Amino acid sequence: MYKCNSRRLQELIEQFSQFGATENGGVTRLSLSNEDVLARNYFCECCEELGMEIKIDDMGNIYGVLPGKKDVPPIVLGSHLDSVEKGGKFDGVLGVLTAIEAIRTIKENDIELDIPLMIVNFTNEEGARFDPAMMSSGVITSKFEKEKMLQSTDKNGIRFEEALRASGYEGEQENRLNEALAYLELHIEQGPVLEAMKHEIGVVEGVLGMVCYEITVTGQSNHAGTTPMSMRQDPMIVASTIITELHDQLGKIDEQLVYTFGRMNVSPNIHTVIPNTVTFTIDSRHQKAEVMQRVEDILKALPTKLEGCSIRPVKLWSRDTVYFDAAICKEVESACQSFGYSAHRMFSGAGHDAQYMASMIPSAMIFVPSIQGRSHCEEERTSFEDCAKGADILLETVLTLQSKFNMDETYTLH
Amino acid sequence: MYKCNSRRLQELIEQFSQFGATENGGVTRLSLSNEDVLARNYFCECCEELGMEIKIDDMGNIYGVLPGKKDVPPIVLGSHLDSVEKGGKFDGVLGVLTAIEAIRTIKENDIELDIPLMIVNFTNEEGARFDPAMMSSGVITSKFEKEKMLQSTDKNGIRFEEALRASGYEGEQENRLNEALAYLELHIEQGPVLEAMKHEIGVVEGVLGMVCYEITVTGQSNHAGTTPMSMRQDPMIVASTIITELHDQLGKIDEQLVYTFGRMNVSPNIHTVIPNTVTFTIDSRHQKAEVMQRVEDILKALPTKLEGCSIRPVKLWSRDTVYFDAAICKEVESACQSFGYSAHRMFSGAGHDAQYMASMIPSAMIFVPSIQGRSHCEEERTSFEDCAKGADILLETVLTLQSKFNMDETYTLH
Repeated sequence: MYKCNSRRLQELIEQFSQFGATENGGVTRLSLSNEDVLARNYFCECCEELGMEIKIDDMGNIYGVLPGKKDVPPIVLGSHLDSVEKGGKFDGVLGVLTAIEAIRTIKENDIELDIPLMIVNFTNEEGARFDPAMMSSGVITSKFEKEKMLQSTDKNGIRFEEALRASGYEGEQENRLNEALAYLELHIEQGPVLEAMKHEIGVVEGVLGMVCYEITVTGQSNHAGTTPMSMRQDPMIVASTIITELHDQLGKIDEQLVYTFGRMNVSPNIHTVIPNTVTFTIDSRHQKAEVMQRVEDILKALPTKLEGCSIRPVKLWSRDTVYFDAAICKEVESACQSFGYSAHRMFSGAGHDAQYMASMIPSAMIFVPSIQGRSHCEEERTSFEDCAKGADILLETVLTLQSKFNMDETYTLH
Repeated sequence: MYKCNSRRLQELIEQFSQFGATENGGVTRLSLSNEDVLARNYFCECCEELGMEIKIDDMGNIYGVLPGKKDVPPIVLGSHLDSVEKGGKFDGVLGVLTAIEAIRTIKENDIELDIPLMIVNFTNEEGARFDPAMMSSGVITSKFEKEKMLQSTDKNGIRFEEALRASGYEGEQENRLNEALAYLELHIEQGPVLEAMKHEIGVVEGVLGMVCYEITVTGQSNHAGTTPMSMRQDPMIVASTIITELHDQLGKIDEQLVYTFGRMNVSPNIHTVIPNTVTFTIDSRHQKAEVMQRVEDILKALPTKLEGCSIRPVKLWSRDTVYFDAAICKEVESACQSFGYSAHRMFSGAGHDAQYMASMIPSAMIFVPSIQGRSHCEEERTSFEDCAKGADILLETVLTLQSKFNMDETYTLH
């Protein structure tokens, strides 16, 4: 068992947090921005110092490859360097930096590798600058059409294609990752569960299925002072009734189910005017397809009319639960036992590049605790100690896998 | 009894609706805009054609005075020429135009007046360009400080003072209306009651008292996918519960009570994020102080904490019910009986210049029906027939009052 260098990892995290540092201790490093390019450059330097070869594909994904003795597909570690606006120092970047620390530990200890190792940085995971999220892992696994993605435009009217070219990180399609023995992504949990349950490592078995609806309630705008209650069609009261009712019904289905009314827009949104339209979203997630089906059944059973208002639910999108590779999860769990780190099997409620990679390569994820579950904000924190424990598990899992692949060339995960 | 000229009034309404006409048959005539100045100019022309003398005060209020045989304070008719953005052809302007039509009918019939008549156009009644509404009637009745009002700024950064000067309608403080025998304002109802009850005229006994609160519910923003329901502090669910609960409680108090949750802002308002703050308003109106007190008691009794969220109600403002002059109301009602027009005694749920004038001059209002209760929108309509009936009642009431004032110089309304 090799322990990573906690101090060195902390320094690396602090170095990267300078690229796009915000006033309040967070990071704004939008995909392909100047700040992202600085982080990319430094990532390439770190890889080259470790004797790794850099390859870049046509979506700007960067691959650092450490050759093994055998000419076989690599074991891949990685995540993304981009952040949301006013995000934290850990989301995404930690998966790349723990991979660097793992390889630094390998080098330091003169561990000989038979199987090549690769670190990947995926472009535009957050979707904060260019819609959609997980764009580039999505393109190389054929979830998205590249040509459409190139046309995705940021709020300043700059197309992804232009930003990619300007960044200097437009590479060749032939460099795309298309074969690997395993893909492992370490990430912050972005939720409060590990901390609350006092676990050090999350063994991520998959990514939750989800469904998102937008519900529009249409009534009749009128003067707040002159319209008797009996003559109103007030969509705000109806929307509140629906939310309260859905909360009541959905809350009884399963304690693992989550649902969020995150966005609400009211028109005309003037305190002296009865609104004419209230539009709100409901995002709901659960591992089991039958539970998601019950959620959809409840949404579809909403009345079309209530107190004179019309109610129109529209499905914005959904995804099925993605299951990660059971054998890798088991190796992650074993590594935790070896180190004496408390492990918790769980599903990710958030989306990650790993969910697309899983369709091509046996994949899994390792979570480290988020303090108070905060993420996508400047207050996002994970203790450096927990980061280092995550790096230990990442390294140990990689070494175990590479030894198994090496000993038995017919060993496969899927 | 003299009937006004329905056709001539319709033409006048149509002429004025050209000043700031919108594509969809409405009007945008913001206070002191070019469109408002065109309407003001034409209003002055109409008055001068009738032999009226124009006076302008330091707030840009325009007074057209038709002398009587006696040198006594006038009976005043009027309203405002400004509109909201994309408003209708009737709100405000109808009170000025029915007054012109009344005086045209007086002239046409060679009716000799003992008491002077005045038509007033109040500046910036809507408050749509410069906050607050009813600014200039408020200044001349000492509700607002003139110096503060001059600094009120529109969305382009133009101060009221600058706009007033540029309009050419800045007059003298000594011209302010400060004494009159009576003030009568005809206005569209802006509500659905007269139409629904098939009444032709509303005899307005006063303006409803109101109270407006802003309620802020603060929770904790977190990822919609990764935060278990039991670990959330979701202000959207709490806000919906409060609105549903308030609707339930307030709905039982009195059927005349109205309440509106007109504005709601959600932060950060992203479908994949649990909101951290939901802020909404409640505007509530009723004639009786004890009912308004019950509303406030209910709002003050809201819990300060619910499901982990804090709840903070802040009173934005309130006003007491304004009662109009009972004797004028009786004359309006009598005029309706004389003409055989169906009259309905009611309170105004909306604010009007008359509510400030009432503190200085015996005042009342005459309402004409709003089709479907619509106002402050391009669809705002009142049938031209109903407009003419309103003008009949306005004229008849003025003639009765002037005759009473003339016969008995000690006759007072208050």
